[in-house]
Amino acid sequence: MQHLLKVYQKVQPLVHKTPVLHSKLLNQITESNVFLKCENFQKTGSYKIRGASNAILNLSEMQRSIGVVTHSSGNFAQALSLAAKNLGVKAYIVMPSSAPEIKRKAVLDYDGIVTISEPTLVARELASEKLQKETGATFIHPSNNIDVIEGQGTACYELLQEESDFDYIIAPIGGGGLIAGTCLFANAFSPSTKVIGAEPFEVDDAYRSLKSRKIETNKTTNTVADGLKTQLGNHNFPILLKHVEQIIRVTEDEIIAAMRFIWERMKITIEPSSAVAVAAVFKEPKLFKNKKIGIIISGGNVDVKKLPF
Amino acid sequence: MQHLLKVYQKVQPLVHKTPVLHSKLLNQITESNVFLKCENFQKTGSYKIRGASNAILNLSEMQRSIGVVTHSSGNFAQALSLAAKNLGVKAYIVMPSSAPEIKRKAVLDYDGIVTISEPTLVARELASEKLQKETGATFIHPSNNIDVIEGQGTACYELLQEESDFDYIIAPIGGGGLIAGTCLFANAFSPSTKVIGAEPFEVDDAYRSLKSRKIETNKTTNTVADGLKTQLGNHNFPILLKHVEQIIRVTEDEIIAAMRFIWERMKITIEPSSAVAVAAVFKEPKLFKNKKIGIIISGGNVDVKKLPF
Repeated sequence: MQHLLKVYQKVQPLVHKTPVLHSKLLNQITESNVFLKCENFQKTGSYKIRGASNAILNLSEMQRSIGVVTHSSGNFAQALSLAAKNLGVKAYIVMPSSAPEIKRKAVLDYDGIVTISEPTLVARELASEKLQKETGATFIHPSNNIDVIEGQGTACYELLQEESDFDYIIAPIGGGGLIAGTCLFANAFSPSTKVIGAEPFEVDDAYRSLKSRKIETNKTTNTVADGLKTQLGNHNFPILLKHVEQIIRVTEDEIIAAMRFIWERMKITIEPSSAVAVAAVFKEPKLFKNKKIGIIISGGNVDVKKLPF
Repeated sequence: MQHLLKVYQKVQPLVHKTPVLHSKLLNQITESNVFLKCENFQKTGSYKIRGASNAILNLSEMQRSIGVVTHSSGNFAQALSLAAKNLGVKAYIVMPSSAPEIKRKAVLDYDGIVTISEPTLVARELASEKLQKETGATFIHPSNNIDVIEGQGTACYELLQEESDFDYIIAPIGGGGLIAGTCLFANAFSPSTKVIGAEPFEVDDAYRSLKSRKIETNKTTNTVADGLKTQLGNHNFPILLKHVEQIIRVTEDEIIAAMRFIWERMKITIEPSSAVAVAAVFKEPKLFKNKKIGIIISGGNVDVKKLPF
């Protein structure tokens, strides 16, 4: 508990305290009391700046003077670049050639040093290892790193500062960093709150992993929730096993409908991965009826020219 | 001034106090200090609930017991329906057959009594007059009614409560209700602030009206800003003539680019009419450099299946 408080105190100056929104209409429809922790308004448009900042803060002076490296096509690339920039550290970012131009530009805007790789996981990992060897930079995994995990959990801590007595807190599961961090902070500061994960049926590796109690993989990743295609790791999986109450799976149509609802009715733009957590509430009306629910809206990075509507 | 304060006090319990947002990125790009008064988060998704509420509050008991009537295909239809419902008044709404199903449904959700007319202005006006005769309900014009105008201005009042010393406040101009109300409150409570209107080139009737000092019309209305196709009236035009510093016109491409910027980078959904006011700031960098600017974000009602991106 003291340790997690220190994490928050260190990360807090480097991130926005994002708003917690609620909606009469959403409450009416779900017959529950829902609070959205809006990390779509976070710096770089997602919660990932929290974990990235914490990871860099926990490096030694020597490590920081050399730099950090990661591979990511998405939100963590931007997050690590900006976190590094804010702390005066070099960030080497391996991005697949398939990454959208707009994301590459964002990384460059934050002074990230971009290396383009072939768009396979193997190629990305090889390019990243090569950079580590050449530069001596420290590798920061986007989700399977305990400092990253604890940093991500600070979103949950802020939510619990604003509202208490949640029956449930729901977060989407991709690589598992956000939900693991959420578990740690919820367990420490609101032990009666149950943490629920949300996942697309199309990439339900976490759901299956919790059943089998070992890390499962996805054969295909045909989901609109592009942030949730990655898989669990050895640092976050044990935390999920211990603390996640259940995982609710949703269809692609349910994700898109939830996303449209939030865009049209609440007037905020959220990314499909965040809509997965909203869809989970729509999916299980009996479970959530008359309950107090927090949802971590993980991000809002969407190319409006490529919407699923 | 006392009168306008009373308007605010009466309207205030019936509306949301919407947030005022700012963005480091927007300030960097514009080299100015911009504050967005976010009426897209207002009840019914636009500022129009303010004027509708004030208009109904100013009716006699007898008039309120009979009801109100208007014709609108857009935000005012929803606003008058909800304002009437909140005050226990019947609302008869004439909607053109061309109005989107989703808007008709929203009006019905607020207990509005819908009459469908042919989609011409003449047919709408005739249907509305017929309803007035048959029911005795009082006609409330969406923009050319002094109570509506003063009600709309309360958004500006809230903005001035939150931030002071604006060099400019910008609002889009359609029927002229929002900008006229903005002028009245800005002039009363922040006389050094200049009010600027924003209009698409495609429907620049207000721009031409201010030049010629008489109300001009639009021959065509080929704009994405569907809320700005209407024209000025005899109640609001004199206020514009007296108080509007200038009107900035923007192209359709500029409107769409500004809308996209706000959606993608600020993560809020605004309607094209609101993007017109944002585009005006991008359009005139010299005028706005190092200035403090308020923008009235008029609404966020958009069908995400029909986006201009």
